Amino acid sequence: MSDPTSVELLLVEDNPQDLELTLRALRKANLAARVHVARDGVEAAEFLFCEGPHATRQFSRPPKVVLLDLKLPKLDGLEVIKRVKGDPRTKFIPIVVLTSSREQRDVVESYQLGVNSYIVKPVNSDHFSAAVRELGTYWLLLNQPPKTNA
Amino acid sequence: MSDPTSVELLLVEDNPQDLELTLRALRKANLAARVHVARDGVEAAEFLFCEGPHATRQFSRPPKVVLLDLKLPKLDGLEVIKRVKGDPRTKFIPIVVLTSSREQRDVVESYQLGVNSYIVKPVNSDHFSAAVRELGTYWLLLNQPPKTNA
Repeated sequence: MSDPTSVELLLVEDNPQDLELTLRALRKANLAARVHVARDGVEAAEFLFCEGPHATRQFSRPPKVVLLDLKLPKLDGLEVIKRVKGDPRTKFIPIVVLTSSREQRDVVESYQLGVNSYIVKPVNSDHFSAAVRELGTYWLLLNQPPKTNA
Repeated sequence: MSDPTSVELLLVEDNPQDLELTLRALRKANLAARVHVARDGVEAAEFLFCEGPHATRQFSRPPKVVLLDLKLPKLDGLEVIKRVKGDPRTKFIPIVVLTSSREQRDVVESYQLGVNSYIVKPVNSDHFSAAVRELGTYWLLLNQPPKTNA
C-alpha cells in the first residue's frame, strides 16, 4: 500500500536563504508536498541510513531524489555521497548536487563518487527558482526511480 | 578552443518512429544542433570509444549526455551501459535510459550498472515530445557535465 507520508525529496541545505528559495520554488511547482529538509551532512546521513531520529524509516522507501549541497556543516557533501553510493542499501538513490561551486575538482570528484547529476546554483534568484522547478519536475515526475515508494 | 562541431547529445535509437519523434522534439526546443544518431549498440560503442568511423574523435570531448534505448540490435543497451560505465575513459558520461520497458528488472539493472537516469517512454506522442524536451533541457542546459566540450 502506498504511504502518503513517505518522503519523495530529501533537501540537504544549510544556507537559510537558499533553503527558503528552494522550498518556495518547489511549492510554486506543486512539488513540495513530501520534502524533508536536512541542515547538515549528519542529519542527511541519519535520514538516508534510517538512523537516530529516523530509525523507524525503511530502506525500502527511499526518496525519489536527494538534492545535496556540497559545503555542509558536520559532514561534508562529498562524504555523504561517498557513504550513500558506497552502500548497497542506498547506492541506487539518485543524488543531484546543487551547489555554488563550479570548481572542476568538485564536479569531477562528485561524478567519480557516483553522483547522478551536478547543478551549479544560478546566482540570479529567478534563474535559481527556474532551475529548482526544472530539476524537481525531472526527478520527481519524469525519472523512474530504481525502487518505488509504493 | 571550443569546437562548434563537437557532439553534445548521442541518441541511440533503432525505432524509426521514436527516432523521428525524438529529433523533432529536440529541434522544436532548439536542442538538436549537435546530435549524433547511432542506430544500434555497436554504432553507439564505436562512437563513445572513438573507434571505427569515429577514430578521430577525442575522449576529451565527450557528449554532454547519451540517450539510450535498451532493446537494440547487435549490442544490447545494458551491455553498452556496462562497457561505458566500466571504463575510466567514459564512465563519467551521463547516460539516460529512454525505453519502453518499465520492468523493474531493467530499471534495477540499469541503475546497478551506473546509469544516471531512467525514463520510460510515454506512449502518447505529445507526452513523449514533452519528455524529450524536458530531458534535453535538463541534460544539455542545466546539468554540469564532468568535462566540458571546450
